[in-house]
Amino acid sequence: MFLELDGKGPQYAQLARALQAAIREGRLARGARLPPTRLLARDLAVSRTTVLAAYEQLRAEGHIEGRVGSGSYVAAAPAAAQQETPATEIDPPSRYARRSRRLQHLLPAGPRHDMRYNLQYAHPLINPSLNEIWGRELAHAAAHNALEDVDPQGLPALRQQICEHLARWRGLVVGPQDVLVTHGAQQAFSLAARVLLDEGDVAVMDEPHHFGVHHALATHGADLRAIPVDAGGLRCDDLPATPPRLICVAPSHPFHGAAMAPARREALLRYADDHQCWILEDDVDAEFRSGTHSSPPLRAAAGAGRVIHVGSFSRTLLPCARVGYAVLPAALRRDFATAKYLDDFACPAIQQAALAHFMESGGFERHLRLARKELQARRAVVLEGLRRHTGRQLEVVDSSAGMYVLAWLRGHDQAFCEALIAYARSRGLGLHPVAPHCAHPPARPGLLLGFASLSCAALREAMQLLGQCLEETRPAPPALARAWCGAARFAVS
Amino acid sequence: MFLELDGKGPQYAQLARALQAAIREGRLARGARLPPTRLLARDLAVSRTTVLAAYEQLRAEGHIEGRVGSGSYVAAAPAAAQQETPATEIDPPSRYARRSRRLQHLLPAGPRHDMRYNLQYAHPLINPSLNEIWGRELAHAAAHNALEDVDPQGLPALRQQICEHLARWRGLVVGPQDVLVTHGAQQAFSLAARVLLDEGDVAVMDEPHHFGVHHALATHGADLRAIPVDAGGLRCDDLPATPPRLICVAPSHPFHGAAMAPARREALLRYADDHQCWILEDDVDAEFRSGTHSSPPLRAAAGAGRVIHVGSFSRTLLPCARVGYAVLPAALRRDFATAKYLDDFACPAIQQAALAHFMESGGFERHLRLARKELQARRAVVLEGLRRHTGRQLEVVDSSAGMYVLAWLRGHDQAFCEALIAYARSRGLGLHPVAPHCAHPPARPGLLLGFASLSCAALREAMQLLGQCLEETRPAPPALARAWCGAARFAVS
Repeated sequence: MFLELDGKGPQYAQLARALQAAIREGRLARGARLPPTRLLARDLAVSRTTVLAAYEQLRAEGHIEGRVGSGSYVAAAPAAAQQETPATEIDPPSRYARRSRRLQHLLPAGPRHDMRYNLQYAHPLINPSLNEIWGRELAHAAAHNALEDVDPQGLPALRQQICEHLARWRGLVVGPQDVLVTHGAQQAFSLAARVLLDEGDVAVMDEPHHFGVHHALATHGADLRAIPVDAGGLRCDDLPATPPRLICVAPSHPFHGAAMAPARREALLRYADDHQCWILEDDVDAEFRSGTHSSPPLRAAAGAGRVIHVGSFSRTLLPCARVGYAVLPAALRRDFATAKYLDDFACPAIQQAALAHFMESGGFERHLRLARKELQARRAVVLEGLRRHTGRQLEVVDSSAGMYVLAWLRGHDQAFCEALIAYARSRGLGLHPVAPHCAHPPARPGLLLGFASLSCAALREAMQLLGQCLEETRPAPPALARAWCGAARFAVS
Repeated sequence: MFLELDGKGPQYAQLARALQAAIREGRLARGARLPPTRLLARDLAVSRTTVLAAYEQLRAEGHIEGRVGSGSYVAAAPAAAQQETPATEIDPPSRYARRSRRLQHLLPAGPRHDMRYNLQYAHPLINPSLNEIWGRELAHAAAHNALEDVDPQGLPALRQQICEHLARWRGLVVGPQDVLVTHGAQQAFSLAARVLLDEGDVAVMDEPHHFGVHHALATHGADLRAIPVDAGGLRCDDLPATPPRLICVAPSHPFHGAAMAPARREALLRYADDHQCWILEDDVDAEFRSGTHSSPPLRAAAGAGRVIHVGSFSRTLLPCARVGYAVLPAALRRDFATAKYLDDFACPAIQQAALAHFMESGGFERHLRLARKELQARRAVVLEGLRRHTGRQLEVVDSSAGMYVLAWLRGHDQAFCEALIAYARSRGLGLHPVAPHCAHPPARPGLLLGFASLSCAALREAMQLLGQCLEETRPAPPALARAWCGAARFAVS
């Protein structure tokens, strides 16, 4: 309790005034319990009689109420309207702030409870029993964990488990010394931007690509060049004449089409070696791709010494745990660990210990297998539903992605797409355009249908509803519609 | 399990080859359990007979071993020596990396088990029962928490609790909309650097000051000017002729001397208003200052609209939880929340919910009261021990800091201090110089004696040992000693 006595008159009166001020200023909330007299006396180094006298005066004046056996409480009274300081508009304090303001509209507005079916990309499969299991792991880790300084690079036990996971699920053999534990893949992207690029340095990324990579690079001030991919992935021929400092690709996790072709992978690695570029490989959610389509990560290839491999547990375990990792080239390990340390010292230790134990016990692998099986069933429902209800109007991209399907609108323009999204929302169906994942507006409008968080039954209904919405959508006047949907599009600085 | 079949010959033979390759390359570790045949068959879309045949062949060749009723395991054999890629030295990839390399030697080397008494600054009081309580809170939060998108600014319930805590313990009345939850105070510092400063912008900080602030600003590329404080804190007269963009102060949490004097606070706020500077107020561990010395935060003063107030739970609760917060001016709220989102989306939700519940239930306040009482006892033991055993050689700074004592060496030079630290370490006593918290080498050598993590009994012994070390230290040749201790000093870019 923070109280300042003004030194005027008897101590009990000083204390009463100080408490009254605390109540008036809201530091002691209406209905809040006052500290026990004994504790307050000790804190303030005054006698308990002084505190009792002060409380008595406040009680007499109606400021506090006594409840027998349960101490004194601030009298309930209509709480003063909370003073909300209006946010005055100021110029961006820095170039970083200027760039980040262009992305402010992308901040999540909180969960959408107004949609029955939200086909949100990146929303993961929710396994309610996992919450309880995870809670037990956390409790166990908290009780058995020495709370000492944590290695900025991450808990060694967790890095070991990540290596075993990568070997078993991705065919990638690395050692714990190569791994950096991060707050989700996003922190790996933002650290990469800072460590590898100066403002104005050229970075290339395949397109479409998860917007988090865009954002991290663009806000840092990279001169960002997006290169549309074809069915075989990024083509080295399309790389800019001046070699970029960094090339961001998702070779096993493309939004559309198959994984990056082997010959192109070789060419890319050769190019990076020849031109001393770094490659950032986004391998998020690759665990859920179906076995027959699985393709090894670029990092597992021979000559991949310039590849930073990024993965995450956000989609495979719990998004709210915010755990990801980067597998680093030996030459960059220390630079990344230092950057992590300067940013926030390290990731929370208990959570790291809990995850390491969950992985070591085989619980994570069991969860992954069940989740993959369920996601494959959900994917089949979506594809069947799309075929049945939207047949001619959507061109579904053949990909083995495990959590979403990309569908281009056929014979419709951007205005129709925007009207469709707005109409579907009014019917309780959340549709999301692919445009925010593109630096350049795509040639055709497309939808990124995230199906991971909805049950098969819900997806059946959602696909039927999507069919109806396609039938019933009437495009709004173009200008209006564009203003709405444009707000979701990513702006390259 | 990641396996690639080569398509040559019978399927069981292809599978056996792929498994053998996985074992050879270390993707399947010695002694690791192979997937159950049924699961692997489903994953690879082959018949179970195929998998059984492949396992049989590997067993016959001695690659795997069957244990009745518990599946197949990779045969135990001497593990191949782990291939450790040597880290080749490369030029720093960016200016950020170049600056951060100057700080790489500061990365924690892990907990020191070779010291009986480690007087490490910032090591907190450890309450073993807290671990279990915290584990229960985490388990409860995991089970009762909807795992939806988290607000980048932080869980509203936690922000509300932080406000109530600030009102009760620091006399600071703010609303949840003003609060940003961060990964410890360090993330608040690094976000402030990015949002408020461009490379080369001038920032000022009082000195000595917790090195985390130094590091965040210096690596970002700030032109950092350190201003030594006197007993009344920072003097505005000492500010540089060109007004800085940012002024970092710890008005209630000074390393030496009393809190910043009221008149100086007013002058500083006026200066910031007149020159449009932002003020970063470091209020970490202010909860533990003794009641009679407690001084309100700068942010609580009238006209503190340009003050960013930073606090942390790392020292008051658990360092490894990595939870801190910034109280932001209204005009900066959105810029900081966007920067947080771009860095790592948000802090882990379960931990935020657990902390909010722990605070709401009164558990945190009970812990704080107990911890404060214990810390005061420890402080008294340290002061008494210093008086008794080191009397003339150390000048103890009169401060109300709750977790450490600053002591200047009297009549000794830097070489002696360095020799003292080295000798004390050889005797199992961890001493730490104040120099790393200074941008400029201090005029006199000093020690920052962190006492929070040691019991009263241990501190009694530690103080006696410190006295002995002071008696027995013989300075090493200056050049050698300086090389050792200089490595711990902070270098301004």
